[in-house]
Amino acid sequence: MEQEYLDHLRHSTAHILAAAVLELYPGTKLGIGPVIDNGFYYDFQLPDNVSISDADFKTIEKIMRKIINGKHPFIKKMVSTEEARIFEKDQPFKLELIDEFSTDGQKLTLYESGPFTDLCRGGHADNTSEIPIDGLKLDRVAGAYWHGSEKNPMLTRIYCLLFENKQALKEYLQLREEAKMRDHRKIGQEQQLFFIDEMVGKGLVIWQPKGTIIRDEIEKFAIEKEHEYGYVRVVTPHLAKEELFLTSGHLPYYKDSMYPAMEMDDGTYYLKAMNCPMHHRIYGHNLHSYRELPLRLAEYGTVYRNELSGTLAGLLRVRGLSMNDAHIYCRKDQIKDEFKRVMQLTIEYFHVFKLKDYSFRLSLWSPEHLDKYVNEPENWEYAESVLRDVMTDMGVPFVEVKDEAAFYGPKVDVQFKSIIGREETMSTIQLDFLAKQRFGLSYTDKDGNQNNEVFVIHRAPLSTHERFLAFLIEHYAGAFPLWLSPVQVQFLPVSEKHLNYAKEIASTFDTAGIRVVVDEADETVGKKIRNAAKQKIPYIVVVGDKEIGGEDWTIRVRSQEDRLTISKDIFLARVQKEIAKRL
Amino acid sequence: MEQEYLDHLRHSTAHILAAAVLELYPGTKLGIGPVIDNGFYYDFQLPDNVSISDADFKTIEKIMRKIINGKHPFIKKMVSTEEARIFEKDQPFKLELIDEFSTDGQKLTLYESGPFTDLCRGGHADNTSEIPIDGLKLDRVAGAYWHGSEKNPMLTRIYCLLFENKQALKEYLQLREEAKMRDHRKIGQEQQLFFIDEMVGKGLVIWQPKGTIIRDEIEKFAIEKEHEYGYVRVVTPHLAKEELFLTSGHLPYYKDSMYPAMEMDDGTYYLKAMNCPMHHRIYGHNLHSYRELPLRLAEYGTVYRNELSGTLAGLLRVRGLSMNDAHIYCRKDQIKDEFKRVMQLTIEYFHVFKLKDYSFRLSLWSPEHLDKYVNEPENWEYAESVLRDVMTDMGVPFVEVKDEAAFYGPKVDVQFKSIIGREETMSTIQLDFLAKQRFGLSYTDKDGNQNNEVFVIHRAPLSTHERFLAFLIEHYAGAFPLWLSPVQVQFLPVSEKHLNYAKEIASTFDTAGIRVVVDEADETVGKKIRNAAKQKIPYIVVVGDKEIGGEDWTIRVRSQEDRLTISKDIFLARVQKEIAKRL
Repeated sequence: MEQEYLDHLRHSTAHILAAAVLELYPGTKLGIGPVIDNGFYYDFQLPDNVSISDADFKTIEKIMRKIINGKHPFIKKMVSTEEARIFEKDQPFKLELIDEFSTDGQKLTLYESGPFTDLCRGGHADNTSEIPIDGLKLDRVAGAYWHGSEKNPMLTRIYCLLFENKQALKEYLQLREEAKMRDHRKIGQEQQLFFIDEMVGKGLVIWQPKGTIIRDEIEKFAIEKEHEYGYVRVVTPHLAKEELFLTSGHLPYYKDSMYPAMEMDDGTYYLKAMNCPMHHRIYGHNLHSYRELPLRLAEYGTVYRNELSGTLAGLLRVRGLSMNDAHIYCRKDQIKDEFKRVMQLTIEYFHVFKLKDYSFRLSLWSPEHLDKYVNEPENWEYAESVLRDVMTDMGVPFVEVKDEAAFYGPKVDVQFKSIIGREETMSTIQLDFLAKQRFGLSYTDKDGNQNNEVFVIHRAPLSTHERFLAFLIEHYAGAFPLWLSPVQVQFLPVSEKHLNYAKEIASTFDTAGIRVVVDEADETVGKKIRNAAKQKIPYIVVVGDKEIGGEDWTIRVRSQEDRLTISKDIFLARVQKEIAKRL
Repeated sequence: MEQEYLDHLRHSTAHILAAAVLELYPGTKLGIGPVIDNGFYYDFQLPDNVSISDADFKTIEKIMRKIINGKHPFIKKMVSTEEARIFEKDQPFKLELIDEFSTDGQKLTLYESGPFTDLCRGGHADNTSEIPIDGLKLDRVAGAYWHGSEKNPMLTRIYCLLFENKQALKEYLQLREEAKMRDHRKIGQEQQLFFIDEMVGKGLVIWQPKGTIIRDEIEKFAIEKEHEYGYVRVVTPHLAKEELFLTSGHLPYYKDSMYPAMEMDDGTYYLKAMNCPMHHRIYGHNLHSYRELPLRLAEYGTVYRNELSGTLAGLLRVRGLSMNDAHIYCRKDQIKDEFKRVMQLTIEYFHVFKLKDYSFRLSLWSPEHLDKYVNEPENWEYAESVLRDVMTDMGVPFVEVKDEAAFYGPKVDVQFKSIIGREETMSTIQLDFLAKQRFGLSYTDKDGNQNNEVFVIHRAPLSTHERFLAFLIEHYAGAFPLWLSPVQVQFLPVSEKHLNYAKEIASTFDTAGIRVVVDEADETVGKKIRNAAKQKIPYIVVVGDKEIGGEDWTIRVRSQEDRLTISKDIFLARVQKEIAKRL
């Protein structure tokens, strides 16, 4: 079904909902009823002493079905402002709208469908019979101020889902249920991964022990890979003098996104919103020969950005971000190779996390908008062709978009589609022609001369811990791969007398580098199993007489029906091997 | 020799220096000549067109020796203010001093020694012959404003060393030379470990790749040990709302030591100067059963403190500190065991770093000063006896000091003596009776009741990265143990044709987890060896025809005369093993 036609159906059904509410509660005053992503809503001022809740949905839906089945055509009527005013005389909100819409002498439209006529710009089905009754479902009730202002009366907003048929509605409801189950805030709380504490502040994530384990594992993995790819690590402060950010150009341009200034006895300081200026200073502090390039400086640096408190939520809108950051300083003839290596690294990362649903987006400059870009046409042409060639050679899927590059160079974004269909930019690889000028970067060439053509690649393949973990939690629905799982094996002693043995073997596993927990709670085994399953523990081992007796263990494997029956030693070796392979 | 007598000798010699300068440069105006740690200085306003430099020291020392050998007694003369003024009529600075010192009718003292008489409070040898000529050495010249104010004239300050004999002077000079060689700022620059960048800001350390390796190794070691000792890790933000610090009590009391406030749209924020309040909030966020205690929360947290910019220097006076922090939350009956474990961990740490010259200092409360301490006499008595008993049982050396505890509980400081004799507090273990009240900490006891007696132990055995590394750099004089060395093996190819093989073996060593560098510079082998030795590389391997031929390698071992002749494989295994053992 065309989206436009579906929207017409949704809008038409809004009229039906209004008609039904009016029939049920005469005297109701009507607000507006616009189309939204999954259907529409309608705002009502109900008569005194009337309120609507989910319990009334059946009755309302029944009346709606009756009207729809009446097969009423939608009839458009052109009326003057005056006629419209007379028609809506009992509808104060509609009268307000008439005042807003009316311009000199212009006609307004009313739409009639059976028992109900309403002021409306239109976009309707021809007949109510077109409305797919089995794709319709009243969703929820909420309060909403008229015109969104708290100075106006509070109306009752009824949300209604409408899809083209029963199947589409069902799929949407399933997806929504799935999204709710996977919500990183919900799982983050259930699994004690992180929390936001009002006393510490909004948008500032506090990582609990279990969330810290996942962060640390990701960081360890990144450090290993970075070492393999020839990066070296640095550590820089979380704040710096104004001078640094004036040099980088973050000030004054980016000031609103930074935390407020701190006046010290030696000048004005700001929390850093980016790591790059500090890395540029490290490059600049040391002397570099052409032989030493590329220099790749990496830091999982924490930056702070000022966002409005009202916009902050979960891990996706935060004020503090720990970024998988690195800056590569290279000669012009090294750009191609370095970009390719970053692409390879990025793909290797995602492979290990078993992420497949992503693509690349190459943002180019536009020679028509020279004011938007640093004026180095040759470098733009060269760099863009290099990025294009590398991606073509590698056979990765990518699109090109003109006139969307950064001011300082072309970039490649990695676009992800989350399991519930949300598209987002996870990471970015940016070329930078400007840093060399601003920070006076140079190297000594073969002949001993200073060369100022130092190119910088900014890259953060694993995004920030906050964004990446929000994504991973929802992607895995909390069932992290073994190597990331905060608890890898949980031992459940059957009773008090099995506790010591459970602790003993737990200690053996711990020594072997496996993260274990012994559930010491005073609960039944059944309850302990359910708890462990709810926590999405990869391996659960019930410890009873049989296990103490040295017989083969029976292991519950996450999301597997069949249990594993296996000796303790083989199990331990298996888990160790799987962790080492990052499975 | 008694310190007081040595000080008298030093002060007496200051008179001799003044006499010598006056003899050499008649018309010189005298400032003051106080005793300092290693001798004394004297401030002079020299006649126009006269200046003194090191080159004049021989001449001055010669005159001083002559005066000393004159065996003049020091003769004290009591004079009235008026007489003193007449006597010092040509000495404007002395006249100022007379004005300052004179109170109604009080007599002043002059000291005469041979050709020279000066206004002076005294404290002298009986005779110049007592001055140990061979313990005397003019040290250096500096500029100093009269009375330390830039509004006054700039005088010439001559520093003079004076020790009881030639041997003591020699030892002092050696120690000072040693300290200069070991200065962490000097080595930090030479080895490219860290730097301070004026554009980033004072007191904010930037860790270069090599310094970061050392930091990371220490952190890895700490994390391993903490895991072994049952700690779990958390990550908390670098700033928080005012409310948090009001709750902890850091505000308003500690405000001057914190960075200035940042006003956000949802309240006032401060950079954290401590990690504890955040850890307390994590404890408070979760529910705890008595079974789960102790809970040990660890974080190498970076905190920021506002120090005057003029006081900042190297790694020892900084504004940003990464602390080996952890907080242990335990029941009262667990204090003893937990404190003991912290002591054991601390001792194990220092053992691995081969640090021996330290002792413990137990700071107790005083029941006489109840206003200085949280009012829980029973907990004070109990906790202090626990700390004392544990240290006594463990047989560690410790002293007790009364009335020096923290407000919230007794503490144990670890006092270190640096290799050049400087004593400092490296780390601290503090009991805290107050956090439970301020943060409402509690646990559920065996009977299901809430118990509010949660005791907190603050501990930071490895201090901060900044302080600990300043200490280690000077302790090792830059020759870090193998496991901490940024470069563990350096390969020096003899010529271009040996380069590829050197890179190949370097790659083998790298894969084996050994940090290697191939010196590709266009230098002679001799120069390369000297460079590597200067960088204090533990193992240096010259790669020539012999090595390519597969013969035994000849390895230069740091600070060892004899070379090691050994096969490649055995050498690799040996280095690996030494690293694993943290040697």
